Amino acid sequence: MVSTAEQPTPAKRRGRRPGGQDTRAALLEAAREVFAEHGFERATVRAIAGRAGVDAAMVNHWFGGKDALFAQAVLKLPVNPADLIGEVLDGPVEGLGERLARRFLTVWDATEGGSFPALVRSIASHDEAATSLREFLLHHVLDKVAAGISTDRPALRATLCASQIVGMGMARYVAKFEPFSTADIDTLAAAVGPTLQRYLTGDID
Amino acid sequence: MVSTAEQPTPAKRRGRRPGGQDTRAALLEAAREVFAEHGFERATVRAIAGRAGVDAAMVNHWFGGKDALFAQAVLKLPVNPADLIGEVLDGPVEGLGERLARRFLTVWDATEGGSFPALVRSIASHDEAATSLREFLLHHVLDKVAAGISTDRPALRATLCASQIVGMGMARYVAKFEPFSTADIDTLAAAVGPTLQRYLTGDID
Repeated sequence: MVSTAEQPTPAKRRGRRPGGQDTRAALLEAAREVFAEHGFERATVRAIAGRAGVDAAMVNHWFGGKDALFAQAVLKLPVNPADLIGEVLDGPVEGLGERLARRFLTVWDATEGGSFPALVRSIASHDEAATSLREFLLHHVLDKVAAGISTDRPALRATLCASQIVGMGMARYVAKFEPFSTADIDTLAAAVGPTLQRYLTGDID
Repeated sequence: MVSTAEQPTPAKRRGRRPGGQDTRAALLEAAREVFAEHGFERATVRAIAGRAGVDAAMVNHWFGGKDALFAQAVLKLPVNPADLIGEVLDGPVEGLGERLARRFLTVWDATEGGSFPALVRSIASHDEAATSLREFLLHHVLDKVAAGISTDRPALRATLCASQIVGMGMARYVAKFEPFSTADIDTLAAAVGPTLQRYLTGDID
């Protein structure tokens, strides 16, 4: 499986047949369109590849699958969600909330918020974009985290986490609330971690 | 001071001189423009009234002041922030977080999210809109709440609260994460209240 972060730089554009980097860029653009039109679940790898005019196998070759393509095309995250979940779940359960907060902040900060403001504009404007984000974040990230530990009401817990995680992104990169916007990750992970921990494993009544 | 929620219905539009409801509508529109251009702090009542072509006294007459005009024009909240702060602070300090969560959800739900998605589009697109919201929410709502109790790092605590409150709005009205989006207010206030309580009065290290 090809890592999504560092791609080998393919040969320069030569002639009309799309080179590797062209294929990759075409897939990213097609993915953004198809996910926005159909939501995450109903968008198929075949439809995305068809829109890009390349073979469906190219999605696996360049991105490793639909989840990672969504993460990179729509969320602009240079991370395969499966890797992210693995990292967050790896460690004592009582540190889960802090690892989750730290991981999101680290990935976002590395791209200076990445496309978070653009993503927010998109979900505030287009129902299907909101559907995509919802399906992806809940069913492909937080549900898996919540399922990794066993508690009651996993869906409510996952959405409580989502509310605080999206709120972190809003406070830090969109509304830029000071000092949240410029505080170091350690400070924020220490403050927000226990919130996510309680939402995932604690008393929410 | 005139309540912002129920206004006496003024006489019907007659001739060219703006009647009461026209004055009020003109002030709301002018306020949205001036707040968006200058941010909350630098926008003056005089400038807003001038843009609307009415006397500055009309702002106090119709809205009771700049805070309430901002709340109604920009946040589309039918609430005077001073009243909101009073209600939230009124009661035992250990229930502050839950009252804060409940008050926001109640006000938002009453207007089906009000302009929350429009506000989010605006702050994601225009820096000055983000500045307005930041200044207003922090300096006119949360700072006053945080100052009503005495703790270390009130600004960080206020922005931590802001992150979770904005995240509630995003989860419920914009991204519409289920079941957060349709859960009853009691359930959400019970789950989110302790988060706000800890951010305001508890251990955040």
